[in-house]
Order: sequence, then structure tokens, then C-alpha cells
Amino acid sequence: MTVLVFLDPARPDGRIADAAQPQLMVTDTGITRGDGIFETMLAVNGAPRKLQAHLARLATSADALELKVPSSDVWERAITTALAAADDDGELVVKLVATRGEPEAGATAWVQVSAVPVGLRGQRLSVLLLDRGYDSTVAQRAPWLLMGAKTLSYAVNMAAVRYARSHGADDVIFTSSDGKVLEGPTSTVLIAQVIDGVKHLITPQLESGILPGTSQGALFAAAREAGWDLGYGPLVPEDLFESDGVWLISSVRLLAEVESIDGKPVTLSPELTAELSGLIASVS
Amino acid sequence: MTVLVFLDPARPDGRIADAAQPQLMVTDTGITRGDGIFETMLAVNGAPRKLQAHLARLATSADALELKVPSSDVWERAITTALAAADDDGELVVKLVATRGEPEAGATAWVQVSAVPVGLRGQRLSVLLLDRGYDSTVAQRAPWLLMGAKTLSYAVNMAAVRYARSHGADDVIFTSSDGKVLEGPTSTVLIAQVIDGVKHLITPQLESGILPGTSQGALFAAAREAGWDLGYGPLVPEDLFESDGVWLISSVRLLAEVESIDGKPVTLSPELTAELSGLIASVS
Repeated sequence: MTVLVFLDPARPDGRIADAAQPQLMVTDTGITRGDGIFETMLAVNGAPRKLQAHLARLATSADALELKVPSSDVWERAITTALAAADDDGELVVKLVATRGEPEAGATAWVQVSAVPVGLRGQRLSVLLLDRGYDSTVAQRAPWLLMGAKTLSYAVNMAAVRYARSHGADDVIFTSSDGKVLEGPTSTVLIAQVIDGVKHLITPQLESGILPGTSQGALFAAAREAGWDLGYGPLVPEDLFESDGVWLISSVRLLAEVESIDGKPVTLSPELTAELSGLIASVS
Repeated sequence: MTVLVFLDPARPDGRIADAAQPQLMVTDTGITRGDGIFETMLAVNGAPRKLQAHLARLATSADALELKVPSSDVWERAITTALAAADDDGELVVKLVATRGEPEAGATAWVQVSAVPVGLRGQRLSVLLLDRGYDSTVAQRAPWLLMGAKTLSYAVNMAAVRYARSHGADDVIFTSSDGKVLEGPTSTVLIAQVIDGVKHLITPQLESGILPGTSQGALFAAAREAGWDLGYGPLVPEDLFESDGVWLISSVRLLAEVESIDGKPVTLSPELTAELSGLIASVS
């Protein structure tokens, strides 16, 4: 069952709507132009995880698109309304969406709460490295490319995953045209290196135009507390093959082990996976 | 007034719906992922212009996205239904949209007929050259980037136009990271060169990853008949400044003269504009 709550100036706590009925106009620029932003988070026991990080990234995405969206407290109230209506003390997916709305009206914004898809977790992933087409410096000189904003224009991300699946793989790690490791279509890349007994957790640097991962951020904070050394790229594909573990991390699937890249095995470390999974599970 | 006709297996001629009411589910992947395709064309006296070219491009876009959409005859019947309902013998905008629909259901597809926006035509454009981030060879090696497909994921196109407007310009000509002229966010680039009395009409080559322009295609056919020489890039920004005329062409705005690029004037030719406008007006 899906719970739907629209953000509505007339209803401070949000307006519950029927998710099984059509609720959007065909002229909404969210659909006609993919012109909007979103966040997806996990709620456990009725509490959304990393809420402030998601709301902060939503605000950053809105700025990149020059999109006026409701303030964080309005989102929070609507999320509370939706989770109360869902009335489920297990795990739920909470999705926030804001579109530019209809021409000359305001943004369309809603919170959607639904079940976690079955079979999403625990799978070891075979991934393909696919060229994202951009070089790793373009984000800084071309703000109109909206790198680092989480927009509704995800057709390329979806096409990349389809391409991987039709070529026998599960997921994708994008690379830049200058050969740097970027991110997954819906996840952040992590590698571990254990050097002289010191555990290093490394992710590509944000300046390469990737999305700032809320799960990566939370895991890094927890890993630092646990004694890990942290690092930020640049990473190249060689680094993945020479690492002591490669993962894709995201808010709902959480930590997913990569077992092969372009058909070549990468090091699996059940111990490091268990440790990092424990750390990300502890995030609130 | 907007007329809306959904393509519906139960209604061979399409199902008329109220465009003033919500008609789409919030879970449609067209909205959640920008995962769909579209076409926009002009209808004059109740007849859509370049219908077969638009339907052919829609089919190409669908192939690129591995999206199953209704066949051309189904689209044609729905277009006929929509134009009959609009009952307007002036000019109308006809938009075709197909999304991947809801997870595990089929595509959502509709025809929308609405008025031509006022003030759209006749304006001389100041444009900015903006880097599209891709090099001009990426389309051929990275099909997952969906270059040449007209998808609903237009957030970057819209952001580029906003960037231009906030910097005092009207529109954008995208360039590739290797310095080639590509296309406008919603138009095709054309230049004219008159050499020894022979008129040349030139557009960037398709292989650079641009959308095949239906208006450019129709104009090229008409111009050839009228004695023009035709050419296909590669073009670089220098070519724009050294030309005898630069235009952006699209299905609804038609031929728009470019009067400056990055603040520098380009040659205006009222005669060539009048001749080319006459040729594109004659297209059916």
C-alpha cells in the first residue's frame, strides 16, 4: 500500500490523497520536462533515517534548478503525516518529490510512503563500467548541466541499468570521459583498502560531478568513529580491482557488495562487508 | 483550451479525458524517472505538419529507450480525435507523450492539443554558446546516453535556457566538449553561406549526438528543390560568426533568426530569412 501526502499551503500538515487515483496534471513540467527533484530515504520504526541530510540535499537540488520548494519544516510535517498514515513499524521507503508544476503555477510537491521492494538486498552485484560522457571537471564550469542535483531527469540512469541487465550484469559504475570512477546510477561507490592493518574507506571526490551520497556521508562519519581512515578520490578503475572491497551504497538498498566489474572478479571481504553493514545499520 | 486524448487499447480512436483534471499517477515512471519520450508538432487547419517524420522519430526514441509504444496508426487515430475535438482551423500545438508508465504496467501514452503560445515567433534571438559536456563522438560509443532520443528528461535543456535568460540572452546553442556546434535545447541550428552566388544551407552532422530535426529535414528538402546546396557539419563556433545567417528551427516556433552569439553580432539577412521562412511555411 502506498500513502500519498501532498504539500499544500492550505494544510500545514499536508493533504492526504489517494495514491491509487490519478493525482497529477499531464501539463505538469515534472512530467513534460523531467523538471523537478527528488529524494528517497528509508524509514525504520516510523522514523526516517538521515532526514536532515536528505532535506539538505533536496534544498541544494532545488537551488541548482532555481526551483522554489517548501521549507524543511513543511516537508517534515508532511513526512510525519504520511508515516502516521502508513502505520507500519517495519521498514518503509519515503520518497520526496517536487516538480516545477504547471506553467505559471507553483511547484507540485508530495511525500510518498511505500513498501521496500522485495529481493533488493543481500545480492552480490556484477557491474559494468559505463562512460557517463562527461569529463570529471565539467561540473565546475557548467552549472547548467545540474551535476550534483538529484533531478527527475533520470532517463539516462535508467537506460544504463537496462544496458547492464541486457549484458548480463546487475548494475553500473559510471566513469568520466577522462577515466575517473564516478558513481552508480542510483548509488555511491565505495572501496576499502587495508594497508599495514589500517582500514581506509574511499569514495570518489564530489568535484567530479557526482551526487553527494547521504548514505556515504553517514557511513563515513560512523567509520571514522570506528577508527577507519577516510579518503576522497580521484579513483580510476584500476583502484577498484586493486582494492580490498568494492560496494555500492544507497539509502534503501543500503550496502551492496560488488563481486565483479566488466566480468572480472574483484576482492570480496565478508568481514569488511559485515563491519560496514553494521555501521550503516546503526545510522539514524 | 487543452484537449487530451489517451491512447487506450479499449478505445481504438483514443479516449478523450479532461485536461483540467489530474490524469496521471504519482508513481508513473514518466514523472519519477523522466522515463519516456515525446514529440511536439504544429497543426494547421486541423492537419498536423510533418506527421510521418514526427512518428518516425518517436519510434526511434522508443527503440533507444526500449519502450513499447502504440503503433503509428494508433497515434494517428488519437491525433485525429484530438484535433476534431479541438475544432480549430487555426494553428495548434500537438504534443505526443509516452512514458514507461507504472512499474509492471504498460506505457502511458497521450496526445495533447493546445494553443500556440503567444509571442513565440518573429523575435530575433541573442544566444549563448554553452558546453553540453559531451564530446561529439560519444553518441556512437555510448548508446545508454540516449543521444538522439527525444526523452522527457529535459531538466538540463531547461536549466540551460534559464541560465541564458538570467545572463541576458534568449536561447542557447550547445557546443560539445571538443568544440563542435551541436543544437539548441529545443531546436536545430542552421547556417547559410552564400559563395559565388550559390546558397548553402548547413546544419551540424547527426553523428555528433544531436536530435534529428524534423523541421530541419523538411526545410532541407524544400531548399534543395529551390536550388540550395545542402551541407552537414561539423561546424565550429567560428562558422557561425563567418556565416551569412544563423537560425534556430523547430516545429512550433519555426525559423528564428539569431542576431548575436555570446554578445557578438552575427550577420542578419532579412532576404534569406524571408526565403527560408517561406520554404518552411510551405511544408505539409
